[in-house]
Amino acid sequence: MLPPSRFDVSGERLTAVYDLHGDPSLARGRAEALCVEQTIEFPADLVPDDSIRSDVIGRIESEERLTDDLVRTTVSYAVETTGHELPQLLNVLFGNSSLLPGIKLVDVHIPASLRRYLGRPRFGIEGLRSLVDAPRRPLLATALKPMGSSPERLAAFAYDLAAGGIDMIKDDHSLANQPFAQFDARVKACADAVGRANEDTGGRSLYMPSINAPFDELDARLGTAVDAGAGGFLVMPGITGFDHMRAVAARNDVALPIMGHPAFLGGYVSSPVGGISHGVLFGTLMRYAGADMSIFPNFGGRFSFSERACREIADACSSGIDGVPAIMPTPGGGMNRGRVSEMIDFYGHDVVLLIGGDLHRGGELRANAEAFRRAVS
Amino acid sequence: MLPPSRFDVSGERLTAVYDLHGDPSLARGRAEALCVEQTIEFPADLVPDDSIRSDVIGRIESEERLTDDLVRTTVSYAVETTGHELPQLLNVLFGNSSLLPGIKLVDVHIPASLRRYLGRPRFGIEGLRSLVDAPRRPLLATALKPMGSSPERLAAFAYDLAAGGIDMIKDDHSLANQPFAQFDARVKACADAVGRANEDTGGRSLYMPSINAPFDELDARLGTAVDAGAGGFLVMPGITGFDHMRAVAARNDVALPIMGHPAFLGGYVSSPVGGISHGVLFGTLMRYAGADMSIFPNFGGRFSFSERACREIADACSSGIDGVPAIMPTPGGGMNRGRVSEMIDFYGHDVVLLIGGDLHRGGELRANAEAFRRAVS
Repeated sequence: MLPPSRFDVSGERLTAVYDLHGDPSLARGRAEALCVEQTIEFPADLVPDDSIRSDVIGRIESEERLTDDLVRTTVSYAVETTGHELPQLLNVLFGNSSLLPGIKLVDVHIPASLRRYLGRPRFGIEGLRSLVDAPRRPLLATALKPMGSSPERLAAFAYDLAAGGIDMIKDDHSLANQPFAQFDARVKACADAVGRANEDTGGRSLYMPSINAPFDELDARLGTAVDAGAGGFLVMPGITGFDHMRAVAARNDVALPIMGHPAFLGGYVSSPVGGISHGVLFGTLMRYAGADMSIFPNFGGRFSFSERACREIADACSSGIDGVPAIMPTPGGGMNRGRVSEMIDFYGHDVVLLIGGDLHRGGELRANAEAFRRAVS
Repeated sequence: MLPPSRFDVSGERLTAVYDLHGDPSLARGRAEALCVEQTIEFPADLVPDDSIRSDVIGRIESEERLTDDLVRTTVSYAVETTGHELPQLLNVLFGNSSLLPGIKLVDVHIPASLRRYLGRPRFGIEGLRSLVDAPRRPLLATALKPMGSSPERLAAFAYDLAAGGIDMIKDDHSLANQPFAQFDARVKACADAVGRANEDTGGRSLYMPSINAPFDELDARLGTAVDAGAGGFLVMPGITGFDHMRAVAARNDVALPIMGHPAFLGGYVSSPVGGISHGVLFGTLMRYAGADMSIFPNFGGRFSFSERACREIADACSSGIDGVPAIMPTPGGGMNRGRVSEMIDFYGHDVVLLIGGDLHRGGELRANAEAFRRAVS
């Protein structure tokens, strides 16, 4: 037995909801083990009746048997376990429990005292609408592609797309620093092209380069993008880490909107009985990491997300959290203009509709962009 | 149709092997779609007979029907698609395909021309053995815990564990910068304690603090750790990103060994028909990101990994790759001294045995550490 530890904590607690798949008669014991695993990861019988036992080990708040093989368990943790840092918050929520069988993280609630240390979408729905001067309509986004195109060609596409009225023109997430179109040259050419289109048409389109770089070059690429006149950033937290996105969102010297991209995150949602729910991953965590928009594959495209998963994401993007603005769900993934009205029916007007390659059909990029814009106006 | 693009590529290609679960008659079409998805993500019928078609779109190299609902497909990609950067390599391997149903990444082969731009374990098996002066025996590791302990208590544990002959004493992965034991004070106290133990016993133990910090503080914590006399680092690529680990491993001004920890990565291996195989995630990718040791939950502990999954990881840690040293599999997760001989039988001598809380049983930490050490000598 350890000697007792005595200290005070604030009493503020965060809450995580886990679905425990498997024999319900084992759920209580699994939940108790989870409370230990996510915090002290130490034999509980060696901890005396002290502050570690009362305040550091997670606490089971409720249990609900949902089916014959599913118990939903709510666990709370002292905010001090996170050190008030997002990386350690991720660890508390799902660090080791991600490796345990049959546990899915399905909801997260963060108290205000911890929220102020996490990411905050700088723009959110209202800020984005103001930036692109679109008070009510759905916003439009597209991607510059295909990989292998030269900076000049991507810039020509960017001009046509901006002139055609697309609000946000992002790099395809596959564009990094390839020899076909290296980052510096591409970003300069595309930012210039979107700037010219805005001048020519009076538009307010934003160019958002992809900040997917080696760790030690992330800040330099961000700086290059800002200097070139980028209007925002595409960030992939599955690759560069959720806290990278938070750090970009927190920089007052940058102050541009962020699109979170789901690349490499799919593994977390590929099992019905493990991983993280669509809503928590692509809604809640994206928001607490500072994304203003969260891209995800819409149902009925070439990906696997169900209508229900997409609803869950949209709800998590807009649920009321004091001090954390609602953000724009950004469904994409094989979408086309024929689905615009259906998408608006499903998501409402607070949505960014992301259509990529389909705008190249027929070869009239600007005309296609204009038609896309008319479809939502 | 796009106008044709013409350029030269090196001809060097990397290879990814995907298991496509589902109707085998659909596998060819799914593989073709995958080749597009992971590269140009653009309607293939709009790409003419040009360099993008021949050199940028992935290429199906082989297909093998393994069962009635599983086809194993090997796809190659031009190294240029990665821009010779690890983050974009991850994107090419499994960025969007992580979001497609029924696709599991099960093997990766990187040509030498690309390998030299990725991470490289600085020490590997031989380097680690030399550092701790243990030419042949299994190495021993443990973790400082539980969270809630003061720096003084953790340092006292560190002294006893080092004096008892444990080679590598890491922070528990849950130790970040909590008020119970803030990073600077904890790391200084624990590094000092391990240093004193080494002086007192003539040992070569290494203290490895956890570098899990906000993005904009990662470098500062690394510097603090080095200045305090840390002997290595615990890094969590599931939280701070695989390329963060690569960047740490690449720093010649640091030059200390790295333990990769699996926190938050479990989601990738929770589905039998999706995500990433255990070997690729905890072996191949850890190695290409510069880990000298890869921690994972051993079979038969409190986690879910099977004996087969552990074998796969161990094999991937040591498979022959020119210029990329073999690394130490580091099984842990609820292990105890009673399992040492079984673990050595299974993994051989090139292994780091990680036992945490069990060394506190009976209250004689140093004596338990000495017994653990005797068990492998």
